Amino acid sequence: MALVCVEDFEKKAAGQLEKNALDYYRSGAGEQFTLGLNREAFRKLRLRPRCLRDVSRLDIGCPIFGEQMKWPLGIAPTAMQKMAHPDGEVGNARAAGKAGSIFILSTLSTTSLEDLAAGAPDTCKWFQLYIYKDRTITEKLVRRAEKANFKALVLTIDAPIFGHRRADVRNNFSLPSHLTLANFQGVKATGVATTAMGASGINEYVSSQFDPTITWQDIKWLKGITHLPIVVKGVLTAEDAVLAKEFGCAGIIVSNHGARQIDTVPASIEALPEVAKAVGNDLVVMLDGGIMQGNDIFKALALGAKTVFVGRPAVWGLAYNGQKGVEDMLSVLRKDFEITMALIGCQTLNDIQSSMVVHESQYSKL
Amino acid sequence: MALVCVEDFEKKAAGQLEKNALDYYRSGAGEQFTLGLNREAFRKLRLRPRCLRDVSRLDIGCPIFGEQMKWPLGIAPTAMQKMAHPDGEVGNARAAGKAGSIFILSTLSTTSLEDLAAGAPDTCKWFQLYIYKDRTITEKLVRRAEKANFKALVLTIDAPIFGHRRADVRNNFSLPSHLTLANFQGVKATGVATTAMGASGINEYVSSQFDPTITWQDIKWLKGITHLPIVVKGVLTAEDAVLAKEFGCAGIIVSNHGARQIDTVPASIEALPEVAKAVGNDLVVMLDGGIMQGNDIFKALALGAKTVFVGRPAVWGLAYNGQKGVEDMLSVLRKDFEITMALIGCQTLNDIQSSMVVHESQYSKL
Amino acid sequence: MALVCVEDFEKKAAGQLEKNALDYYRSGAGEQFTLGLNREAFRKLRLRPRCLRDVSRLDIGCPIFGEQMKWPLGIAPTAMQKMAHPDGEVGNARAAGKAGSIFILSTLSTTSLEDLAAGAPDTCKWFQLYIYKDRTITEKLVRRAEKANFKALVLTIDAPIFGHRRADVRNNFSLPSHLTLANFQGVKATGVATTAMGASGINEYVSSQFDPTITWQDIKWLKGITHLPIVVKGVLTAEDAVLAKEFGCAGIIVSNHGARQIDTVPASIEALPEVAKAVGNDLVVMLDGGIMQGNDIFKALALGAKTVFVGRPAVWGLAYNGQKGVEDMLSVLRKDFEITMALIGCQTLNDIQSSMVVHESQYSKL
Amino acid sequence: MALVCVEDFEKKAAGQLEKNALDYYRSGAGEQFTLGLNREAFRKLRLRPRCLRDVSRLDIGCPIFGEQMKWPLGIAPTAMQKMAHPDGEVGNARAAGKAGSIFILSTLSTTSLEDLAAGAPDTCKWFQLYIYKDRTITEKLVRRAEKANFKALVLTIDAPIFGHRRADVRNNFSLPSHLTLANFQGVKATGVATTAMGASGINEYVSSQFDPTITWQDIKWLKGITHLPIVVKGVLTAEDAVLAKEFGCAGIIVSNHGARQIDTVPASIEALPEVAKAVGNDLVVMLDGGIMQGNDIFKALALGAKTVFVGRPAVWGLAYNGQKGVEDMLSVLRKDFEITMALIGCQTLNDIQSSMVVHESQYSKL
Ligand SMILES: Cc1cc2nc3c(=O)[nH]c(=O)nc-3n(C[C@H](O)[C@H](O)[C@H](O)COP(=O)(O)O)c2cc1C
Ligand SMILES: Cc1cc2nc3c(=O)[nH]c(=O)nc-3n(C[C@H](O)[C@H](O)[C@H](O)COP(=O)(O)O)c2cc1C
Ligand SMILES: Cc1cc2nc3c(=O)[nH]c(=O)nc-3n(C[C@H](O)[C@H](O)[C@H](O)COP(=O)(O)O)c2cc1C
Ligand SMILES: Cc1cc2nc3c(=O)[nH]c(=O)nc-3n(C[C@H](O)[C@H](O)[C@H](O)COP(=O)(O)O)c2cc1C
Repeated sequence: MALVCVEDFEKKAAGQLEKNALDYYRSGAGEQFTLGLNREAFRKLRLRPRCLRDVSRLDIGCPIFGEQMKWPLGIAPTAMQKMAHPDGEVGNARAAGKAGSIFILSTLSTTSLEDLAAGAPDTCKWFQLYIYKDRTITEKLVRRAEKANFKALVLTIDAPIFGHRRADVRNNFSLPSHLTLANFQGVKATGVATTAMGASGINEYVSSQFDPTITWQDIKWLKGITHLPIVVKGVLTAEDAVLAKEFGCAGIIVSNHGARQIDTVPASIEALPEVAKAVGNDLVVMLDGGIMQGNDIFKALALGAKTVFVGRPAVWGLAYNGQKGVEDMLSVLRKDFEITMALIGCQTLNDIQSSMVVHESQYSKL
Repeated sequence: MALVCVEDFEKKAAGQLEKNALDYYRSGAGEQFTLGLNREAFRKLRLRPRCLRDVSRLDIGCPIFGEQMKWPLGIAPTAMQKMAHPDGEVGNARAAGKAGSIFILSTLSTTSLEDLAAGAPDTCKWFQLYIYKDRTITEKLVRRAEKANFKALVLTIDAPIFGHRRADVRNNFSLPSHLTLANFQGVKATGVATTAMGASGINEYVSSQFDPTITWQDIKWLKGITHLPIVVKGVLTAEDAVLAKEFGCAGIIVSNHGARQIDTVPASIEALPEVAKAVGNDLVVMLDGGIMQGNDIFKALALGAKTVFVGRPAVWGLAYNGQKGVEDMLSVLRKDFEITMALIGCQTLNDIQSSMVVHESQYSKL
Repeated sequence: MALVCVEDFEKKAAGQLEKNALDYYRSGAGEQFTLGLNREAFRKLRLRPRCLRDVSRLDIGCPIFGEQMKWPLGIAPTAMQKMAHPDGEVGNARAAGKAGSIFILSTLSTTSLEDLAAGAPDTCKWFQLYIYKDRTITEKLVRRAEKANFKALVLTIDAPIFGHRRADVRNNFSLPSHLTLANFQGVKATGVATTAMGASGINEYVSSQFDPTITWQDIKWLKGITHLPIVVKGVLTAEDAVLAKEFGCAGIIVSNHGARQIDTVPASIEALPEVAKAVGNDLVVMLDGGIMQGNDIFKALALGAKTVFVGRPAVWGLAYNGQKGVEDMLSVLRKDFEITMALIGCQTLNDIQSSMVVHESQYSKL
Repeated sequence: MALVCVEDFEKKAAGQLEKNALDYYRSGAGEQFTLGLNREAFRKLRLRPRCLRDVSRLDIGCPIFGEQMKWPLGIAPTAMQKMAHPDGEVGNARAAGKAGSIFILSTLSTTSLEDLAAGAPDTCKWFQLYIYKDRTITEKLVRRAEKANFKALVLTIDAPIFGHRRADVRNNFSLPSHLTLANFQGVKATGVATTAMGASGINEYVSSQFDPTITWQDIKWLKGITHLPIVVKGVLTAEDAVLAKEFGCAGIIVSNHGARQIDTVPASIEALPEVAKAVGNDLVVMLDGGIMQGNDIFKALALGAKTVFVGRPAVWGLAYNGQKGVEDMLSVLRKDFEITMALIGCQTLNDIQSSMVVHESQYSKL
């Protein structure tokens, strides 16, 4: 039977992955309230479609930092993709490239950034950065990313430590021993493979390696060592959006890290409007979290995002069928977005108006 | 056991129809959020009944475009009704006629408009129009509708392409080969019968045949070639309602196409108030979507509709027991509406006041 | 196991009654949305208890029309109680009397008002009136009620016809043939015992017998033929409350007839505030519908009711164990109300303040 | 499998306790609406985390009445803890001490306050007071508490009688005969062990022993006989908070007694804002009820509480594994709170800002 929506890929993946990996990929923090909210919050937004507009020449091309992407959806950074499928990050990135989507490589990838660049040369690639206690490590990563032709740095700012994901603790999660964090050597590469009882290997790794002292001042440091545009990922408030602007970031990804850090934070689509209002077009606002359908993408754009990213959906495609699985998932999503555009009466992303999306509470006023 | 409500007919039909047809009839777009909302939104509206009014002489007659209908409910256009029962469109239309209801024939009917007119001469018939890429086709349909004594043209404006109905893609939906789109010849008649893998035959037909370039200007063209009143079907916003008025339409059907086009649009009853407020009595406002009971009809009228239409309920009646099934369904609905009228203290449709329906949120103010 | 709440009596009764009778007693109109709402709407109201008040001398006595009731809860009129238990209306009324509660006898009782008066002489009794097409019938009922020492007339104004209760139609509901409507002779007594296919016997009886032309003017007529205070039962709007006052009624029962007339009307507790605000203390405001616990009673009083009534709970008590069952049910409810009073810091009904009950939406304002 | 959250301890305890005890511990009043609400109301509050703040030196120390507690969570008074585990109150208090938490001993403990003090000398202990009809009893308790080095008196003001907990009545709840209320002699010690049919032993005890006449004036009396700070427990309204201040209380615990008194009162987290606003920093505002996770603690602090307490979670820990079970439960909770602090960008309790917690309804405004 044809896979017709992202949920179909999710179900397939759930049937194929081992529990250790599946739980790692799908979990959210705590009771997973926000995990569900990331999707449900989209259902509280209503589309207001406009009729009788010529929609014969859809053009959903989307320029970001000077690159012309084919549509406003990219792949968010997710760690350790080879656990899902041997194609790993390369498969994911190649699928993105074919679709004309940005691919963001995680610092915690099971493929080194050089191998990724070699394997997916035609894909527009960004590099996601975590800042290690040992600053020289981060500095080296930046250099390597520049050299390997990554186009932007995505600094994840919502993870000084990792959130409490119950299943990972119950599973005593660790990276299968044939895999490593491929950007590193030694314990920084293998540190996720062993873990104490009653703990998650990845959380222990993060606590021992990441620098929890970083502040906005470190953006200055980062800007001092690279010419790449800096995107901060993990903003959920207008206050932090304004800081991002003041400290010279080129973009913001409104994100709650796939609901994996603290539970009961807002859905990313809930947080988007205050961020977009606070910074306007002064920097590029983007979003990830809970995107499952064409109309989700449309809503994010109408509320101020220039593009969106998907994390888990790409993992499900990869787990299901490697690179081909991701390609298929992206093509389902793209088609669904095109239908949405046409049926709301938009030919280009510029036609999207904020009045096309309202909160359901608008309809309680008779 | 007596069938006492529309759900009873729905259940019977579900037990009798084949999956291919059943899914086609019942599906909505995407996750089917709006499909459920079309009904639930009525539950958020409270009736405010008035007591001690003489309700002994109910008269629910309803004039529309100069015709006196027996009550404010008609049959919305639904495609390919012979899939439900051999009685098909003729059975449905005859049942409508007996009940004093308008019947709207779909362009995509399995009975030609001439056969329909011959089979149901006493029914007040309207013809629903899709605009084909080849304009001469539409022009001919208009001519034939006029000649066959149809009283109005219903231009469906929410379907430049068709929505993503997951079940139809999973089922590889196609029209059974003994049936055709009877208003046409050749591929236009048989085109829904074959379909590519992983696609819905009806969606492919629509993409290849319908004109996605049409705009409000084409209303002018249509008005230029016919004297029939033009009703636009599919309006969900005040903005489009105002355009309909400006371009000289005679009526509007507030509709989301039975939640079959884009998911997460408002329920039609949610969209009705803004439309009614925007155009007042300048043109005839009507509604379809989610009507299942007498009190649903009442609410739509109180919020500004002059009449409502049902799509699926008639299909369920037809599937259950042909023309007789539709008659029975309509009589259940009519009786339920009469009880509602009496118990709210209204003898005629003019007695219905907007204060008789409020949103539930009114009751959160102590 | 001890029966500790009204739900316990409900469950017992459901296990003992035959379907025909059980469905008749428990049904609401249509989809039974308001049936559930009658209870749920109480859950949206929060109690604001006050501490450190002397609550050692609870006195919940409640004066109504000059009679001193022992507490603010009476028994609402429900038809045909012998179907529930041979003790019938007499058992119910005696239990009410023992508890110091008002008992309202239905016109459609299976015990005549004279037998009721003889069987429950010490109970404070009111008589519920339906107005028959043949006015002399109603006039005689009024005379008999006066003579039998009933203290008030309760005119039910929400039932010119009866609502659509699906189960009754499915069951072809009729009164068991050994029972009659004991206030009448001939077909008026036996008319509920036979019914056409696909119909409810009680609804057919009502349509053939009750007068659907009555208006507020008929209140004048009624006042002209009796000295008893007149209570109108079935008010759900401020508008009708004002009319009740203008036409000289002594009291109002805010009620939706146990959700049995039209579905999606407000819960009676939702309608109470607007009624109480509209008429203040000019007439006695009361309420029935959905009362299941002590805190429900308290909320109704805080929002403006002087007393409340229960319909089904008494039927469940009766069905479970005749008069004794009703006594037990009332004593559970009374104890629960006393605990509520004490824990909110009220010794008498006069201590109840409107600030002690707020809508849950109050708590969304931080 | 590791126990990773309070629910895990709850489940373990539920599997180990006998029904009589389990029901006593877990029950709420009435339909248990507020019991659920105590937890759910936290889910309606969203956290607004701030990024890029140095969170390397978390210090969650919390001064209360001059004592420096290690974190803002203590153990609420719960009666009869030896029913849960032989370690009883001493085990619970020692676990609290190890965690740097306040332990509040109930008047109705199965360990005398002297034994508790001897068994847990290093724990910061408060004594919870009920006022008996015989005032000399309360006076003696106060003297003994002072002598045994308790640091505050917690006067529970929401329990002039006990609420209707259905399961306890159904179970005919009584204290197992090998246990006594250890602070007392004679019937005051053994009175919960026997009970009439259809009643709860603890409720009967309370009705016969506690003084329901107490008022705010009795606070004066209490202040006259002790130098210990007086905390009133059970405030749910701004009005009572103001009175607590006027009568010279040192602190308030916003609490609905674990939803055990009257059903449909607000969740304690719902009531907190109005209390905090009413009294500001004039006295120490605290909260208990529904705390299950680190983010619950954070929300209470952001809305004005200086510390929170848990009741049942400690009972579950105790039931599961005695003192060690409570220690483990506390350490799970502490870790979860630390993660929350870090991920919201707070190093100390002073960093917590009210803007970090908003009601979900904020996000319905686009
Ligand atoms: C399994 C998994 C691993 C992730 N790893 C990273 C990571 O290494 N770096 C990062 O910045 N975000 C990481 N994220 C967060 C994603 O970038 C993204 O914010 C999130 O997945 C978006 O939500 P979605 O999964 O609903 O699309 C991860 C998310 C998941 C589900
Ligand atoms: C099976 C089916 C076929 C439909 N075909 C058409 C059609 O050919 N033309 C059209 O304008 N609307 C079509 N509609 C939409 C209906 O006219 C109408 O808007 C909708 O069914 C109303 O909602 P309801 O089914 O809840 O009553 C169709 C709907 C259904 C369910
Ligand atoms: C089985 C049944 C029969 C009823 N019969 C009458 C009646 O004869 N006259 C009347 O005025 N109301 C009648 N009612 C309505 C009740 O007086 C009352 O409004 C309703 O039962 C209150 O709601 P409750 O059942 O939730 O307490 C009836 C209700 C029920 C459930
Ligand atoms: C089993 C049990 C016994 C309790 N006994 C007392 C008590 O003796 N005195 C008192 O003031 N509160 C008592 N409480 C209320 C608690 O102090 C506290 O308010 C409540 O448990 C907090 O809610 P939580 O259980 O959700 O944490 C009791 C609560 C429970 C669950």
